[in-house]
Amino acid sequence: MTDAEGHPDVEEIDLVSVLTALADPLRLQVVRDLLADEEGAERHCTSFGLPVSKSTRSHHFKVLRESGLIQQVDRGNSRMAQLRRADIDSRFPGLLSALIT
Amino acid sequence: MTDAEGHPDVEEIDLVSVLTALADPLRLQVVRDLLADEEGAERHCTSFGLPVSKSTRSHHFKVLRESGLIQQVDRGNSRMAQLRRADIDSRFPGLLSALIT
Repeated sequence: MTDAEGHPDVEEIDLVSVLTALADPLRLQVVRDLLADEEGAERHCTSFGLPVSKSTRSHHFKVLRESGLIQQVDRGNSRMAQLRRADIDSRFPGLLSALIT
Repeated sequence: MTDAEGHPDVEEIDLVSVLTALADPLRLQVVRDLLADEEGAERHCTSFGLPVSKSTRSHHFKVLRESGLIQQVDRGNSRMAQLRRADIDSRFPGLLSALIT
């Protein structure tokens, strides 16, 4: 079941939604940056340096969250993004590693 | 260099273009069907049974061709589609196999 913030359960993660989320240069950059971090790393949404407005950035993170690629968690006043690496690897083995060639 | 029909050279194949091409259920179905065939198989564009008009089908095959996912070749009166499996595997190892889970 998708939670109140739009995170789908692992078995609900849909390949077309994931591919759609990745098929944008800025969202792909976010996922690649998270892949380059250590597993489980949490990054502030502003830390990726996306050259867009706050509302556009929020849109991109919403698409990533609703596709199942990232988990967003609130830490005090900050909203952090974490790659759902194990979930994506279990659903589509090899997909994430193909993005960092 | 991209040829007159819009096939990019292997080194010009772009990940975002490939992901964009795959991020559509019908185009993804075409690629999965080609993956299920033997390597090098040529399929007529009508053989995938896409539930769309001829012009929409042509559009989908154009997107696939221009992304580098497929090669289209004319055989007499027929236009055949072939997956560029080796080219995609060399550019983005693991990407195609992640689509057939």
